Amino acid sequence: MTLARQERAIRTRRAILVAAAEVFDEVGYEAATISQILQKSGLTKGALYFHYPSKEALAQAVLDAQVRAVPEVPARGLKLQELVDQALLLAHLLGTDPIVRGSIRLTVDQGSAKDGLDRRIPMSAWQDSNTVVLKLARDAGELLPDVDVDRLAKLLVGGFTGVQVLSKIMTDHADMTERVADFMRHLMTSVAVPAVLVRLDFAPERAERVHREADAAAEQDERVDAVRQE
Amino acid sequence: MTLARQERAIRTRRAILVAAAEVFDEVGYEAATISQILQKSGLTKGALYFHYPSKEALAQAVLDAQVRAVPEVPARGLKLQELVDQALLLAHLLGTDPIVRGSIRLTVDQGSAKDGLDRRIPMSAWQDSNTVVLKLARDAGELLPDVDVDRLAKLLVGGFTGVQVLSKIMTDHADMTERVADFMRHLMTSVAVPAVLVRLDFAPERAERVHREADAAAEQDERVDAVRQE
Repeated sequence: MTLARQERAIRTRRAILVAAAEVFDEVGYEAATISQILQKSGLTKGALYFHYPSKEALAQAVLDAQVRAVPEVPARGLKLQELVDQALLLAHLLGTDPIVRGSIRLTVDQGSAKDGLDRRIPMSAWQDSNTVVLKLARDAGELLPDVDVDRLAKLLVGGFTGVQVLSKIMTDHADMTERVADFMRHLMTSVAVPAVLVRLDFAPERAERVHREADAAAEQDERVDAVRQE
Repeated sequence: MTLARQERAIRTRRAILVAAAEVFDEVGYEAATISQILQKSGLTKGALYFHYPSKEALAQAVLDAQVRAVPEVPARGLKLQELVDQALLLAHLLGTDPIVRGSIRLTVDQGSAKDGLDRRIPMSAWQDSNTVVLKLARDAGELLPDVDVDRLAKLLVGGFTGVQVLSKIMTDHADMTERVADFMRHLMTSVAVPAVLVRLDFAPERAERVHREADAAAEQDERVDAVRQE
């Protein structure tokens, strides 16, 4: 495949995933149809089925894309601040990014055993990514000595998930960054050494800025990659 | 209506609610049908429609019954221990009580705007019930002075909801009481005065015992009510 054709295929797959995620976010997995997704993407049935053979394959691809859809947060002096920023960024993306929205709905809606979707994939990916950052925080002396990193990684994922559900039900996500900031503040209070805790910033307003910074860093990375490939 | 007829009507409504909750838990609101609920309850269509005119009315009744389905935890020396026990009890009931299971699935599944279900009712009821206990804890000097009771009540509801979702996805609820105990331990560490914190018991094994005690207390109350009515 030529580079141009490869790029076209990547763009097409991305367009399909975004359209599918939007439909899953609006009506859920059960009620979603391939026709709705086609209509939204403006592609032909042939193009769609060439990339994804079924609604199930599409939904699984949206689930699998969840963690990758969130750009990396910029490096901070404190690893725990990166964790806070990661949560605020994800909260912010729930208002703006179709793949994050659709994918999180697919994860949280219980579905049925026979729908064949593996909801553990995004959950495990978040747990793993939290564990990596928490281990770095521990090595940097940011965590109290009795903190169990694996349990804490689970608590971060579980707590965030539910705070999101509650914010959606009560305010249609309007208070999302505020609720997530509260969650992170309480959690960090229970695990960070005092000298680190007083330096952490939990302002909900950080969310938007972190999003801009993360997007800028991701674009920078892409430009560097492009130069390297030339 | 005679007392006997009233009691029969209560029993019938209860049987319908349990059957409906079981079906909602198994397949979700969209996929559930009145026929499945009839089959499970063993009642006639006439009896069901006499009490609940539609699937939507049934689902809303299951949602509304969520908080009432959880018996009150026994009084403890510390109000915060009652809050911990309440969470452990709810975690335990998610494994055993059909109304709690079905109702929580109805709450968490996003559904569609046109399904007409008000998922805020159980969420608000939990927030209110937490707020009451937290205010008593504050008056008893159990909370650190800077704790915002309303925000903390929301965090308790949101966090519990998500810990439940994660436990369901990863272990089909097998690690539910353990995850909830972790959540409550971290949260209490961030809000309880030290002298109270060291006295709180977060052992996941408490869950089953609290359930037995709460059931026994509820039966005792019913007997007292029955004697009073004579």
